[in-house]
Amino acid sequence: MASVVSKPDPRDAQLGRARVTDTDELRQFYAELGAHNADAFWNRANAIEPWEPQSRYNPTLWKYAEMRELCLRAVELVRPEDAGRRVVTLLNDSDAGRANTAVCGWLFSGLQAMRPGEITPAHKHTASAHRFIMEGGGAYTVVDGHHITLGKNDYVLTPNGCWHDHGVAADGQLSIWQDGLDIPLMNCMESNFYAVYDAPAQTPGFPADDLPLSYGGAMQPDGVEAWARPFSPTMVYRWEQVRDAIWNFAKVSDGSPFDGHIMRYSNPRTGGWALQTMGAHMQMLKGGLHTRAHRHTGNVVYNVAQGRGYSVIGGRRFDWAEHDIFCVPAWAWHEHVNLDASEEAFLFSFNDFPVMEALGVRIEEALEDKDGRQQVQA
Amino acid sequence: MASVVSKPDPRDAQLGRARVTDTDELRQFYAELGAHNADAFWNRANAIEPWEPQSRYNPTLWKYAEMRELCLRAVELVRPEDAGRRVVTLLNDSDAGRANTAVCGWLFSGLQAMRPGEITPAHKHTASAHRFIMEGGGAYTVVDGHHITLGKNDYVLTPNGCWHDHGVAADGQLSIWQDGLDIPLMNCMESNFYAVYDAPAQTPGFPADDLPLSYGGAMQPDGVEAWARPFSPTMVYRWEQVRDAIWNFAKVSDGSPFDGHIMRYSNPRTGGWALQTMGAHMQMLKGGLHTRAHRHTGNVVYNVAQGRGYSVIGGRRFDWAEHDIFCVPAWAWHEHVNLDASEEAFLFSFNDFPVMEALGVRIEEALEDKDGRQQVQA
Amino acid sequence: MASVVSKPDPRDAQLGRARVTDTDELRQFYAELGAHNADAFWNRANAIEPWEPQSRYNPTLWKYAEMRELCLRAVELVRPEDAGRRVVTLLNDSDAGRANTAVCGWLFSGLQAMRPGEITPAHKHTASAHRFIMEGGGAYTVVDGHHITLGKNDYVLTPNGCWHDHGVAADGQLSIWQDGLDIPLMNCMESNFYAVYDAPAQTPGFPADDLPLSYGGAMQPDGVEAWARPFSPTMVYRWEQVRDAIWNFAKVSDGSPFDGHIMRYSNPRTGGWALQTMGAHMQMLKGGLHTRAHRHTGNVVYNVAQGRGYSVIGGRRFDWAEHDIFCVPAWAWHEHVNLDASEEAFLFSFNDFPVMEALGVRIEEALEDKDGRQQVQA
Amino acid sequence: MASVVSKPDPRDAQLGRARVTDTDELRQFYAELGAHNADAFWNRANAIEPWEPQSRYNPTLWKYAEMRELCLRAVELVRPEDAGRRVVTLLNDSDAGRANTAVCGWLFSGLQAMRPGEITPAHKHTASAHRFIMEGGGAYTVVDGHHITLGKNDYVLTPNGCWHDHGVAADGQLSIWQDGLDIPLMNCMESNFYAVYDAPAQTPGFPADDLPLSYGGAMQPDGVEAWARPFSPTMVYRWEQVRDAIWNFAKVSDGSPFDGHIMRYSNPRTGGWALQTMGAHMQMLKGGLHTRAHRHTGNVVYNVAQGRGYSVIGGRRFDWAEHDIFCVPAWAWHEHVNLDASEEAFLFSFNDFPVMEALGVRIEEALEDKDGRQQVQA
Repeated sequence: MASVVSKPDPRDAQLGRARVTDTDELRQFYAELGAHNADAFWNRANAIEPWEPQSRYNPTLWKYAEMRELCLRAVELVRPEDAGRRVVTLLNDSDAGRANTAVCGWLFSGLQAMRPGEITPAHKHTASAHRFIMEGGGAYTVVDGHHITLGKNDYVLTPNGCWHDHGVAADGQLSIWQDGLDIPLMNCMESNFYAVYDAPAQTPGFPADDLPLSYGGAMQPDGVEAWARPFSPTMVYRWEQVRDAIWNFAKVSDGSPFDGHIMRYSNPRTGGWALQTMGAHMQMLKGGLHTRAHRHTGNVVYNVAQGRGYSVIGGRRFDWAEHDIFCVPAWAWHEHVNLDASEEAFLFSFNDFPVMEALGVRIEEALEDKDGRQQVQA
Repeated sequence: MASVVSKPDPRDAQLGRARVTDTDELRQFYAELGAHNADAFWNRANAIEPWEPQSRYNPTLWKYAEMRELCLRAVELVRPEDAGRRVVTLLNDSDAGRANTAVCGWLFSGLQAMRPGEITPAHKHTASAHRFIMEGGGAYTVVDGHHITLGKNDYVLTPNGCWHDHGVAADGQLSIWQDGLDIPLMNCMESNFYAVYDAPAQTPGFPADDLPLSYGGAMQPDGVEAWARPFSPTMVYRWEQVRDAIWNFAKVSDGSPFDGHIMRYSNPRTGGWALQTMGAHMQMLKGGLHTRAHRHTGNVVYNVAQGRGYSVIGGRRFDWAEHDIFCVPAWAWHEHVNLDASEEAFLFSFNDFPVMEALGVRIEEALEDKDGRQQVQA
Repeated sequence: MASVVSKPDPRDAQLGRARVTDTDELRQFYAELGAHNADAFWNRANAIEPWEPQSRYNPTLWKYAEMRELCLRAVELVRPEDAGRRVVTLLNDSDAGRANTAVCGWLFSGLQAMRPGEITPAHKHTASAHRFIMEGGGAYTVVDGHHITLGKNDYVLTPNGCWHDHGVAADGQLSIWQDGLDIPLMNCMESNFYAVYDAPAQTPGFPADDLPLSYGGAMQPDGVEAWARPFSPTMVYRWEQVRDAIWNFAKVSDGSPFDGHIMRYSNPRTGGWALQTMGAHMQMLKGGLHTRAHRHTGNVVYNVAQGRGYSVIGGRRFDWAEHDIFCVPAWAWHEHVNLDASEEAFLFSFNDFPVMEALGVRIEEALEDKDGRQQVQA
Repeated sequence: MASVVSKPDPRDAQLGRARVTDTDELRQFYAELGAHNADAFWNRANAIEPWEPQSRYNPTLWKYAEMRELCLRAVELVRPEDAGRRVVTLLNDSDAGRANTAVCGWLFSGLQAMRPGEITPAHKHTASAHRFIMEGGGAYTVVDGHHITLGKNDYVLTPNGCWHDHGVAADGQLSIWQDGLDIPLMNCMESNFYAVYDAPAQTPGFPADDLPLSYGGAMQPDGVEAWARPFSPTMVYRWEQVRDAIWNFAKVSDGSPFDGHIMRYSNPRTGGWALQTMGAHMQMLKGGLHTRAHRHTGNVVYNVAQGRGYSVIGGRRFDWAEHDIFCVPAWAWHEHVNLDASEEAFLFSFNDFPVMEALGVRIEEALEDKDGRQQVQA
């Protein structure tokens, strides 16, 4: 497996690990196995059964100031109806990222800029998608006929299998958002289907924002048809409500030692994740907060909703400001710092934790020594 | 069974129903069965297997103007530390209601008035309880050490098995709320346990309102210990949020033909009912609305949160104004009317639907004829 | 509430209990409350909130030798098409049992004898039913068109809302079984509906025993329509398989201190109870076993599948032999004794535990003192 | 993405697909994007969003006669305590298979031969494993201290995170089984952890076969600690019971048009799959049966438990006899033929369907034309 490099590890000398010495006879045997679509397990065992995960992906940071310019260039250079979606794709700074079109792990992300009056043609795919709005005005998404208006720092879903198209109203402003999808996962699972709608855009069949206005929280509509799809009916989570929820939470809780005050965008019909394959969080780092380090299975992609600071990921420091994007690969130590002593910082993030949970492998570890702080590489 | 009267019904003459004619020999046989703690099934079959349910309970209405006076009298006459809880219990206008201390079905309800500085001694029971605040200021409930402040039209839980005490702050105002409990259900199920706390009141162990401030809606705390109890962590649902949720819902939906815009107080951790044995709703009747009639298994107790109107229940008209209380017994036809042509009316209600659902018998029927309206008895 | 007797209890003198002394003024107030469909809570509080449950039902035992004779008498005296079902109903030896047509708690039970060629007319009801076959040959049940053959000690379901009819094949033998239903529960919940099929018997629409032959255990049919109803598709649990399962279990486990080797008839589609409102067990008491006493919420009705012994229930000894029936009311201490030193005894039983679990009140307590044995009343 | 080849597809010319023509300016823009860890989405869109899945894996068949010889050679050449596990790994006949050490999709499989008295050292890993016994006697597995004996055509689990070791009793016979694991999945998810037990083998802490003897079917132990782990407690499914279940099912059902009489090894505690990431089936093809073709997401690896016949996979014919192994990649058409006109054939198989279901992408399609039969390539 290309992704797992078999480095000499002294632990591999013990009983329970593969430690066969090559001989001519064995080499001949291996050739024979190869001729039968087979191989000796012990030639691969230590590589395919590592002591712990070792990600193929690297922590990577994208400065919004730079990426924004590239998005505006794309707007000038390409029409959305030719591009399919006029998206600048973020590629993890690793061979795996470039080969798999992944931002981190089996997650895709890109930046999409749209001018007033532009649309992205309607389509659907097995892949799930969500979006985090970074700037603009008048943007919207239509999901299976439900028109959803979008504002700055809103988080919106376009779940697996739903028809969707996007656009910016003619009287709106140039808008930029971050897309997150599980396209690499769907491709590696060989389960990705795609279809084009029979019109450039859907005609909404419901009052605007009917889903978020019906399903916003702990009060749920009754006496109408019950929502039975396997994703959240809320569809869009408004920034003001999200921020107020975190402020409320912060009044009465110390939050997490690793993440400050972190809240999950949840499906009010189940209490679980809003989508089946990707989760999302908003977290607040109080002024001056420096969290303790931990690591876990699963990948996380961050978008700085507000504030400035840095994160230490795998021993490297990554400085960030508003709408910078960075990622934490699976099983990499990470901690966050708010560099403003008095103002809060907010980090939006999305992840593949629902996949880890569904497969029974959501595993986490705290850094116990050095007060929970990593040593930063020079 | 006292509750099921075996009236002659022409349908009982057919095959599949009991239709045995008494004889001397049979009467002797029945006596012998009786001597063996037994009886002939066919002597009871048609009574214990009715064609459809026939409630032992009657629709009943309590005028708040009158009940409020009685509550204030109780305040003068009895100290809460002598009464246990200084509650005026509502008894359904039926033998069953008086015998079972039930407001309707296996539900209990009462009105509790407290003066500033008074407390209800801390205790717990297997029965679940919830409260709807009708008037006052400075009222609070403490649930397993969590202090919860209460305002007008707020809905608050004291779930099964939780220690709880209530009171009104010394600088508060005389407060009145409606209690709802499943005491009759717990007694009929022979599962009611009671215990007294080892102090008159609990000492809160958490910041005030920590639960409602942490669990309010679709954003859920992460990175802290996960809520794992079988009831909602929200604990109190604030009137302003409830009303806003309904207003939002009403912007985009026609609501229910039977109930107008009705929303369920739900457990954001599961999407289900907030308590295991009792549910609650708030519903809005737009100005002038006259709903269609339906009937269903399960009992409902209403408290008029706002407005004036009437309900037709089992063919009888019951006029109501703010904070009047009335009930709809199981399988009784009912429809609601908002008598104000322009102002909305709001009805709070609680029910035993979670029990009906858990037992697999939540059944509903619409009145199809007469445009869905009952004929009102003169 | 008739069922809860307010006895003077010294514990009721403390803060947290009702302890108001009557006065003339109070008596006048109570009268006024009564005129408004109300009462003072403190007049009823200690009765409706007992320190612990106190069942209205008594342990009762029915000797099969006697009950069998009564069943045969019924066969002579009444035709099944007149009786609806020609059942001898078991009435708990208590006012509640006789009033509610209950064998124990909110459970119904009866004995049904049928001659070869006889049928019970097809019908359905909201109540759930199950049967335990005591003797005979050629008996069958038809459930929603599925024909199910029945042998001695088989356990068979006729779930809520399913059309069902019973009979004995023309070449069969007189057969007797025990019915268990939740009729009293359905009536007390006011959710009981009844309907008669439009023919005396259903015409089976599937191969005989198709459900038990398809769903018998850990192997489940795939590639065919998935079973989606809220009860077990197994429908009948054969005695030989049940006994073998217990024998296997007993080879490797000490079983329960209170029940010997006890196994639950489960729904292989969910792992839960076979029916939504009633559970069933088979338990084996090894030769000479004397279990420890415990008590729990929920009611249990036993049928001695094999062996002889006695049970101590609430301090009274009840001796039993094959197919005797006895019951244990909620929260009554009970222990079982196999009087045969070398042969196993088997007890079939059914209960309302699924209701207790659904309502969140399945509570159990072990008798800690006296080595877990009750003192038997003289 | 290496796995998705962007072939010219006429459908890609339409609105909704990427169809941007390269220009010098764009090429310069792409270079700039590359310098920022980014790329233009439209350069990759049609490749990473294919119209439908196109597997990187090929149908492959391994003849047991040949593979058995290779296993015996391995027995001669390598000691199990040096090999870790002395397994001949099956590699899919594709670049992906060889690179990912996969039998098909993200599944691993290998053949393991053990002589009497040999053991595989105890270890554990995040990966789940199961085994299908092909020949021998006296083989066993120990799972978290539970000793499990194994016979021909038995199916046994060693779930994720459980300590396990294998062996053949000193008085047993040379035994060969097929291992199935989700190692490639765990590695691609970067969630694979490995540990070696602190002794060569576990000392069993329970009676032999206690788990399969306690949890075999629809009767479940009660009164003992409830099984709460996220996989089946049954642990081993015996061939005789599996075969009998299928025979019973075949008496009353026509089975599936695509798979004959196919049954799922299920977890009796949940009704779901026995493991969280891999499922397994046994299916019977009646004498002479030729099934209709279908295709689905998810990969399947077959082991011929009994009989001879062929399968048409992706238009190619693969002939098989007892214990031959073959695989069907995701979304490949496939149909099965039993070449014996009168004897049944049995196919054991395992798959990654639980992953597809957990991710919401279990999708299936029937071949409608040509009577559901593929055209076989010459």
